[in-house]
Amino acid sequence: MELRDMLEMVRTGEVSVEEAEKYFAKKPFEDMGYAKLDTQREMRSGYPEVVYCSGKADEHLLRIFETLYRENGEVLGTRASKEQYELVRQSIPEISYDEISHILKIERPGKQRKGLIAVCTAGTADIPVAEEAAQTAEYFGNQVERIYDVGVSGIHRLLSKMDTIRLANCVVAVAGMEGALASVIGGLVERPVIAVPTSVGYGANMGGISALLTMINSCANGIAVVNIDNGYGAGYMASQINRLGLRS
Amino acid sequence: MELRDMLEMVRTGEVSVEEAEKYFAKKPFEDMGYAKLDTQREMRSGYPEVVYCSGKADEHLLRIFETLYRENGEVLGTRASKEQYELVRQSIPEISYDEISHILKIERPGKQRKGLIAVCTAGTADIPVAEEAAQTAEYFGNQVERIYDVGVSGIHRLLSKMDTIRLANCVVAVAGMEGALASVIGGLVERPVIAVPTSVGYGANMGGISALLTMINSCANGIAVVNIDNGYGAGYMASQINRLGLRS
Amino acid sequence: MELRDMLEMVRTGEVSVEEAEKYFAKKPFEDMGYAKLDTQREMRSGYPEVVYCSGKADEHLLRIFETLYRENGEVLGTRASKEQYELVRQSIPEISYDEISHILKIERPGKQRKGLIAVCTAGTADIPVAEEAAQTAEYFGNQVERIYDVGVSGIHRLLSKMDTIRLANCVVAVAGMEGALASVIGGLVERPVIAVPTSVGYGANMGGISALLTMINSCANGIAVVNIDNGYGAGYMASQINRLGLRS
Amino acid sequence: MELRDMLEMVRTGEVSVEEAEKYFAKKPFEDMGYAKLDTQREMRSGYPEVVYCSGKADEHLLRIFETLYRENGEVLGTRASKEQYELVRQSIPEISYDEISHILKIERPGKQRKGLIAVCTAGTADIPVAEEAAQTAEYFGNQVERIYDVGVSGIHRLLSKMDTIRLANCVVAVAGMEGALASVIGGLVERPVIAVPTSVGYGANMGGISALLTMINSCANGIAVVNIDNGYGAGYMASQINRLGLRS
Amino acid sequence: MELRDMLEMVRTGEVSVEEAEKYFAKKPFEDMGYAKLDTQREMRSGYPEVVYCSGKADEHLLRIFETLYRENGEVLGTRASKEQYELVRQSIPEISYDEISHILKIERPGKQRKGLIAVCTAGTADIPVAEEAAQTAEYFGNQVERIYDVGVSGIHRLLSKMDTIRLANCVVAVAGMEGALASVIGGLVERPVIAVPTSVGYGANMGGISALLTMINSCANGIAVVNIDNGYGAGYMASQINRLGLRS
Amino acid sequence: MELRDMLEMVRTGEVSVEEAEKYFAKKPFEDMGYAKLDTQREMRSGYPEVVYCSGKADEHLLRIFETLYRENGEVLGTRASKEQYELVRQSIPEISYDEISHILKIERPGKQRKGLIAVCTAGTADIPVAEEAAQTAEYFGNQVERIYDVGVSGIHRLLSKMDTIRLANCVVAVAGMEGALASVIGGLVERPVIAVPTSVGYGANMGGISALLTMINSCANGIAVVNIDNGYGAGYMASQINRLGLRS
Amino acid sequence: MELRDMLEMVRTGEVSVEEAEKYFAKKPFEDMGYAKLDTQREMRSGYPEVVYCSGKADEHLLRIFETLYRENGEVLGTRASKEQYELVRQSIPEISYDEISHILKIERPGKQRKGLIAVCTAGTADIPVAEEAAQTAEYFGNQVERIYDVGVSGIHRLLSKMDTIRLANCVVAVAGMEGALASVIGGLVERPVIAVPTSVGYGANMGGISALLTMINSCANGIAVVNIDNGYGAGYMASQINRLGLRS
Amino acid sequence: MELRDMLEMVRTGEVSVEEAEKYFAKKPFEDMGYAKLDTQREMRSGYPEVVYCSGKADEHLLRIFETLYRENGEVLGTRASKEQYELVRQSIPEISYDEISHILKIERPGKQRKGLIAVCTAGTADIPVAEEAAQTAEYFGNQVERIYDVGVSGIHRLLSKMDTIRLANCVVAVAGMEGALASVIGGLVERPVIAVPTSVGYGANMGGISALLTMINSCANGIAVVNIDNGYGAGYMASQINRLGLRS
Repeated sequence: MELRDMLEMVRTGEVSVEEAEKYFAKKPFEDMGYAKLDTQREMRSGYPEVVYCSGKADEHLLRIFETLYRENGEVLGTRASKEQYELVRQSIPEISYDEISHILKIERPGKQRKGLIAVCTAGTADIPVAEEAAQTAEYFGNQVERIYDVGVSGIHRLLSKMDTIRLANCVVAVAGMEGALASVIGGLVERPVIAVPTSVGYGANMGGISALLTMINSCANGIAVVNIDNGYGAGYMASQINRLGLRS
Repeated sequence: MELRDMLEMVRTGEVSVEEAEKYFAKKPFEDMGYAKLDTQREMRSGYPEVVYCSGKADEHLLRIFETLYRENGEVLGTRASKEQYELVRQSIPEISYDEISHILKIERPGKQRKGLIAVCTAGTADIPVAEEAAQTAEYFGNQVERIYDVGVSGIHRLLSKMDTIRLANCVVAVAGMEGALASVIGGLVERPVIAVPTSVGYGANMGGISALLTMINSCANGIAVVNIDNGYGAGYMASQINRLGLRS
Repeated sequence: MELRDMLEMVRTGEVSVEEAEKYFAKKPFEDMGYAKLDTQREMRSGYPEVVYCSGKADEHLLRIFETLYRENGEVLGTRASKEQYELVRQSIPEISYDEISHILKIERPGKQRKGLIAVCTAGTADIPVAEEAAQTAEYFGNQVERIYDVGVSGIHRLLSKMDTIRLANCVVAVAGMEGALASVIGGLVERPVIAVPTSVGYGANMGGISALLTMINSCANGIAVVNIDNGYGAGYMASQINRLGLRS
Repeated sequence: MELRDMLEMVRTGEVSVEEAEKYFAKKPFEDMGYAKLDTQREMRSGYPEVVYCSGKADEHLLRIFETLYRENGEVLGTRASKEQYELVRQSIPEISYDEISHILKIERPGKQRKGLIAVCTAGTADIPVAEEAAQTAEYFGNQVERIYDVGVSGIHRLLSKMDTIRLANCVVAVAGMEGALASVIGGLVERPVIAVPTSVGYGANMGGISALLTMINSCANGIAVVNIDNGYGAGYMASQINRLGLRS
Repeated sequence: MELRDMLEMVRTGEVSVEEAEKYFAKKPFEDMGYAKLDTQREMRSGYPEVVYCSGKADEHLLRIFETLYRENGEVLGTRASKEQYELVRQSIPEISYDEISHILKIERPGKQRKGLIAVCTAGTADIPVAEEAAQTAEYFGNQVERIYDVGVSGIHRLLSKMDTIRLANCVVAVAGMEGALASVIGGLVERPVIAVPTSVGYGANMGGISALLTMINSCANGIAVVNIDNGYGAGYMASQINRLGLRS
Repeated sequence: MELRDMLEMVRTGEVSVEEAEKYFAKKPFEDMGYAKLDTQREMRSGYPEVVYCSGKADEHLLRIFETLYRENGEVLGTRASKEQYELVRQSIPEISYDEISHILKIERPGKQRKGLIAVCTAGTADIPVAEEAAQTAEYFGNQVERIYDVGVSGIHRLLSKMDTIRLANCVVAVAGMEGALASVIGGLVERPVIAVPTSVGYGANMGGISALLTMINSCANGIAVVNIDNGYGAGYMASQINRLGLRS
Repeated sequence: MELRDMLEMVRTGEVSVEEAEKYFAKKPFEDMGYAKLDTQREMRSGYPEVVYCSGKADEHLLRIFETLYRENGEVLGTRASKEQYELVRQSIPEISYDEISHILKIERPGKQRKGLIAVCTAGTADIPVAEEAAQTAEYFGNQVERIYDVGVSGIHRLLSKMDTIRLANCVVAVAGMEGALASVIGGLVERPVIAVPTSVGYGANMGGISALLTMINSCANGIAVVNIDNGYGAGYMASQINRLGLRS
Repeated sequence: MELRDMLEMVRTGEVSVEEAEKYFAKKPFEDMGYAKLDTQREMRSGYPEVVYCSGKADEHLLRIFETLYRENGEVLGTRASKEQYELVRQSIPEISYDEISHILKIERPGKQRKGLIAVCTAGTADIPVAEEAAQTAEYFGNQVERIYDVGVSGIHRLLSKMDTIRLANCVVAVAGMEGALASVIGGLVERPVIAVPTSVGYGANMGGISALLTMINSCANGIAVVNIDNGYGAGYMASQINRLGLRS
C-alpha cells in the first residue's frame, strides 16, 4: 500500500487518525530486546531473514529459530555448530543439519528450483564455502550446478567444464590461496561472476586477504567480490541475479 | 560452428587437413606484438573490448583506437588524459572526451538505452568514479539514473530518493571515506548492489582501503565489491545484470 | 592546598622543613611493588581507579580488589573471567559478576543515576561490548538507555528509535563488521558520538580493524573512536561528557 | 510540527492530501544536482554545514559558498588552497583565508566565545592541524586556549601548563610521530580528551598510522580519537562537549 | 690455489711471510671509498657485476662505469634515467640506452646467445619490466623469446603460445594487477617459472603487493617469486637456470 | 601425438570421427566429484601429483591415496597429521610417516638419487620446513645435502660449509626471524637459491611475513622466494633445476 | 693470537703445516648435526651462548643444556615451559626455573653484580617481559633496579622514581598498549634507553605492533628498540652498555 | 641545588617565599609561542638541543637558529634543505651545509673527538643516512670510522674490515633493502649495534618497513633499532654509549 492511498483513506475517514498514526509508526520488526527480527523481510525483499548462528547465545538462537519458523514456515541458519543443531533439534525435531556447509535449516517441501547458478571451486578445501553458497541459493529457489576442484594450476580441468558453466545466469567462483580462478572464469563467460575468496592456504595467504586482493584486482570484466569465506553472501546475490534472468 | 561439424567436413574432404589445422590453431585476436586485441570479443561476450588508456605509449594507444574503431565502428577508452584526447583526435576527429569521467569515446549513433541502473554516490568528490560507471553502462546500452551526494552522514537525502532507486535492476553505490553507503542501500533494496570504494578521503583512508574493507564486511545482503575507483568494472557488471533483467 | 600556602607555612614555622619535604615527596599512590594503586584517583579526577582483570595473577588481583574496596568502599573490575570471580568471592562474598559484560564489581548501594547516555549496537553479537560500556557508565552514576540490534542493514530499526537516542547527552555506538552505525547516528543527532568498533565478524574484518577504519574515516561530524572492543573506555568518556551536561 | 498534528489537519481538511503528500516528501536540503546542501542543518543540529574544499571543482565550490553564505550569513571552508581563496574572493570579497590552517571563511561579526577548549600540540609541525581545530571551535562560538610544542620528549614543558589545561571543558591533543601526548594529558586531566594523530614524522610513522595506533591503544581514561590530521573533526566534537558544559 | 698449497710454500720459503700475509688479507674488490667494486665477480660467479643506476650520484656513476668498462670490457646498468645516459655518453660515447627497459650498456660484440628463456607478460603495461628481464638475460648470453599481453582475462591468447613457451628451459612470468599469469603458466609447463609481480594497476594493488601475494600463494608447482618490478633479478636467475640446462 | 597426426588419421579413416571427437574431448584427470585427480601429471610434467593432506576429509584423503597409489605405484603426501597416518595405514600398511617433516608416503624402492641440492637452515627450529623440502626432492630422485643451523648471527658456521654448498646445482635456504641467510648464501654461490621464509620467531615476525620481505628484497643476485613454510614448493622447484643440470 | 704470529711460527717450524691447517680450519662450534653450539662464544664476546627453549625438541633441549653446562659451568635458557623444566631437572637437578620470566638456569655461585641497569614497566602485565630482561642482565653480572607499573597514564608515579632511574648506566623501558613510556623516560634521562614493546593489550594493539611503532617513532633522543616481548635482547644489550660504563 | 637546600633557605629567610615560588615554577625552556626551546638541555643531559629543520617555517627556523647559537655558541640542524641553508646564511654567515647528510651547522672550533664509533653501510645509497649519523656523533665529540658499501651480498667486503669495526665502542649499521647487515655485524662484534633501516630499495621494501622488520627480528644479540632513515637518532645514542666507554 502506497503513502498516497493511506492518506486518501485518512481523508475519507476510512482510516482513523489513530490507526494511521499507528500505521506510520509501525515498526516492521519483532523487537525481542536483544534482537529485532525482520519478519516482514520476505514481503519487502522477496527473501526471508536468515540467521547467522555463530556466536549467538543458546537461548537467543532457539527463540529466533522458533519465531522465524512460526512466522515464515521455514528457516535457514548459517555457520551453525553441531552443538547448536543438537540444541535446536530438541525444540524443532524436523530441522536438518549439513556438516560440510554448517547449514541448519527447515525448508518448505516442494520448492521449485529455477534458472541456473554455477558454483565453482579451485580446490577441494574450498568446498565448505561453496556449499554454503550453493545451499543458500537452492533454499532461495535457484537451480545450482556444482563444479569443484577446477583451479588454475590445472587449467584443462576448468576448460573441460566451460560448456556447463556457460549455461548459468551467474557464476560463483570460490578460491583460496592465490584466488586466480575468478579471473580466468571472468575471461571465459559473459555472465556476472561473484568471487568468493577463502581462507584456505597458509603463510602469506594472511587468512584469505591474499585471495581477496587477487580477486579485487582482477583484470577480467564482470567480477565483483564478497568477504572471505562468505558463501552465504555470494549465494544470496547470485539468487538476485538469477531471478532477474527468469523474468520472462 | 561446432567441433563435430568441422571434423565431419575433414572426413568428407570438404575441408582439407591444412585448413582444419589452421582453423584449430586460429587465434581469436589480432596480434600487434606489444598487444593482442580481442576483436572477436563482442561476438563472444556481447561487449566489445574496451581500452584502459592510462600508461599506454602514444603510438600504441593510437593504433589500438584505430584498429578497434575500424573493426567495431565504435570505441570506449577509460582513464584517458587530456593529452591522449588531443593525440587521438588528430587521427579520429569525431572522438569525444569527458573531463570528469576521463572517458574517451566514439559511440555509434542511435543506440537505444534499456532497463535501469541506479548510480549513487556518497559525496561530490565521488562523482568522477560514478560517471565512469554511468557512462560505461550507457555505452553498453543501459539506461542510467544518477543520484549523487546522498551519503549516510545525512541519511534523509538518501531516503528521499529510494523510490527512484528501487526501480533499477541493479544499483551501483560509489563511496569513499568510510564507505557506509553500500550497506545502507543494500538494506533498502531487493536488487544486487555493486559497491565501488573510492580513494576519496585522507589519513587513515589509506587510499581507499578503508572504504573497500567497509564494503567487503558489509552486514547487508546482496552486495559485492569491485576495486577502488573502478567505475568501469562496476558499470560493466551492472550492464550484465541489467541485461539479464531485460530478457522477457 | 596550594604550593604557596605550604611554602608560607614553612616560613612561619607552622610546618617544619622535614614535614614539608615529606609533603612534597608524597607519592599519591599505594606502592605494592608489582603495582602502584592510585588511591587518590577519585579525589583527583572524580572517578575511582578501575581494575583491568584480564591476565592479572590471582594473588595480585585479590590484593588489588581488597585494597581498593577498603580504600573506596566499592570496586569495578572489567574483563574478569568466571574463575577470577570465584577467586575474589572467597575473600569478598558480596561481589557480583555479570557473564555477558565480564564485569566484576561491588557497588555502593543507593547510587543515583543522572543525565542520559544512549548505548546502541549494530547487532546482537556486539552486546557484550555494549554492556561493558553501559555498566561502566552506570557504575559512575549515569543513566543509560540500551538500544540494541539497530544496524544499518535494516535502517528502519534505527530510525524508529531516534526519539529516544536524541534525548541523550552522549551516544555510544557499538558495531563490528563494517561499523557503519556510528556514521548514520552521527548524521542524525547533535550530541557527541563515541564509536566503539568490535571484533565481531570474520574474514576481512581483521579482528575489528575494518570497523575501526570505518569509524575513524567517518564523514559525519561529532564522532570519535576508542579501541576495538573497548566498552569500558567508551563508558568512561561518555560519563565525563554526560557529567558536563549536568552542571546546571 | 509533529506527525500527529499534520495527520489531524489532513482529517479536518485544513491541509489537502496533495499538500500533505508534499510535506511528507519534502527534502530538507537544497538539491544542486552535483551536491545536496543541508541548509536546515543549523536548525537541526545547532551547527551550520561546513565545506570541505579540497578537490571540489571551481564552479561547484563557488556556488556552494554563495548558497551557504546567502542562506546562513556566514560560511566555513576547510582544506582550502590559496587558489580557491583567490577564486572565491572574486565573488565574495569579504572572505578571509588563513595560510596555516587552510581555513577559508566569512564569519558573522560580534560572535561571543564561551566556555573553554584547550588545544595542545606535541611539536611545532602539528600546529596547522591544531589551528584547524582551534579556528573551527572559535567559529562555532567557543573560547580556545592554544598550548603548543609541549610533547612528551620534554615533559616539563607540558607539566608547566597543566593549570591552564585543567580549566578547559575539553582538551584537544594533537600529535604526530609517536603520538604519546594524548595519553599523558589523559592521565593528568578529568575532562574528555579528543586525540588527533597527525601525519608529521617520517619512516615508520606510515603517514600518521603510527600516531593513530598509539592514541587508540592509550591506557589512559577519557580519550577518543579522530582521523589523521582531522583538526576540523576534533574542533567540532570539542564544541559539542564544551557546549554541554555551558548549560547552566 | 688452496690454503694448504699456500702454507706449504710458506714452509719451504717459496713464499715469504709478508707475501703470504698479503695473500690472506687480499680483498677481492676495488675500494673506491664510497663503493667497493667486485671486479673479480665474473671470475667467481660467471657473471660480471651489474650497476643499479637509480639514485647514484653523477660522479660516482661515471667512475663506476669507467672502472667496470676498463676491467670487464662491457657494462650493464639498470634503472638508468635518460639524464644518466647523457652523462655517461660524454665519457663513453659507445654506450647505448633503451628507453623502455631503462637499460644503459656497452656489450662486447659477437656474443652468442644459447638455450632458451621465455619472457611472458600479462599486459602491455608490464613490458618495461619484462624487457629489463629479457635484456639482462640476453646480456648474459641467453636466447630469449618474448610473449607479451597474454594475461588470464583472455586465456586463449596464452594457450595459443604454449608450444613456444614449452621449448624454454625457464619461464619468466611478468604480471601486475591480480598477477594470476604465473599460476596458469606454472600449471602448463614442466620448467621452473620465475614470477615477477609488477606495480601495474591501481587501488587495492598497493603498488604491486597484491600481485606479489598472488604469486607467493600460487597453488601451482615450480614457481618462485622476486621483488616487485625486479626484471633484472628474474633475468639473472633465469640465466643461471638456462645455463644449467646447457651443460651437455 | 600431435594435432596434425590425429587429423591426418581422421582424413584417412584410420580414426573415426566419433573416436577423434572423444580424443579431443578427453579429460586428462580422474573426476571423483569432490576432487579431480591429475593421473596423467607424471606423463605430462615428469612429476606425479602430490597430496596436500592438511584439512582433507578422512574419506577423501583415503580414496585419493588409494587411487594415486594404484595409478602411480607411489604417493607423496605433505602436511599430514599423525591421525591421518593412522587412518591411511589401515588401508595401505606399507605407508610410512615422518613426524618432523609431516610427510606421509609410499616410495618405489630402488629409486636412484642424482645431482645435488643443498638444503640449509638458519636455526634448529627451521628443520621441519627444510625436511619437507629435502624429502620432497629425494622423492623426486634428487640427492640432497643437509646443512642446518648456519644462520647469520654466527657467520663462521656457514662459511665453514661453503665448499659443500658450492657443489650443488641449486641451494634451498630456509630461515625465519630476520631471514638473512638467503642473501648471504646468494652472495657466496653461483647457483640459483630458492629462499623459504619460515614462521619461526615471535613478535614482529608476523607469522613469517618479516622473513618473506627480507628475502624478496634481497640485494643478492639469483634468489627467488616461495611461500612461508613452503618446503614442498622449494623442493619441487629445486628438483626441476637440478634435473636441468643433469642433462648431459 | 694473530694471523701473522701463526704464519711466523709456520715459517720457523714451531708449528707444522698440518697443525696450522687444522688451526685455520678449526670450527669454533660443536656440531651436533641438528645444532651447532657456539662453545667459544664467551671467549669471543664475553657472553656465553644462551638457549632459546621454546619449540625445541625434548631430546635436543636436554643435550644442549648438558653440553653447555659441561663446557661453561652454567646455562641460561629463555622462554622455557614448566614441562621443559621438569624434563631438564631429571638430568640436571640443580637447575632452577622462574615461572614469571620463564627462565630456566643454572648459575655459577658468587657472581658479583656491577654497575646499574634500571628496568621499568608501564603496567603490571608487562612484568614477565621485564623479568626476562632483568634476570638476563643479572646472569651476565649486572646490578638491576626494578621499577614497575609507572606508565604514562599516571605520570606522577614515574616522576617520583626518576632519582633512582637516573643512577643507571642504561634504562630498559618495557611497555605494551600505546608504549609511550620509552619516550617519556627518554626525555628525562641522559643514558641510553632500550625500549621493549610488549604484546600486552587488545584490539588495535595488533599483538604489540602498536607499541613497536610508537617506540620506533619516538621523538625523544637516545632510544632504540628491540622486538616485541624480547626481554632477553634488551637485557643483553643493556649488559653490553653497562659494562662499557664500568671500564675505569 | 636540591629541594631540601631550597626549603632550608626559605626557612632561614635567605630566600623569600616569592623567590622560592618563582624557583619552583621556573620553566626550563624559552617559550617562543610556536616553540619551546630547551636551552638548559646541555646542562641537563650533556647534549645541546638539535634542530629538525624539515617543514619548519622560514621565520621560525631562523629565530630558532639565532637563539640556540646565542645561547650555546653552536647549533646542529638536521634534514635541512639547500634553501634553508641559503636563508640562515644571510643571518649567520659562518654556518656550513653538507649536501649529502643535509646537516646545517656551526660548530665550536677545537672540539676534541674521543673514543670510537664505527658507522657501516650496506650500499652506496645508504651513505646519506650514515653521514647524518656520523656527523651527529662527531658534533657531539666522538671519533667516527666510516665503513661503507659492505653489504651481505658480498660478505668478504665486510669480513675484510672486521678488525677496524671491532675497535669501536659502538657500531651503527645502516642498511636498506633486506637490511641483513645488522645481523651479520651483530654476530661478529661484542659491542652494541644500533641498526638503522633505510628507505633505499623499491617494490616490497615498503619505504623501509622491510629493513626495519629484518632488523627488529634479528637473531643476533646486542642489536636495537631506530626509525627508518633516522641517522641522527643512531648518532645520538652511539654518542651516549661511546661516552660511557670513556669514563676512566
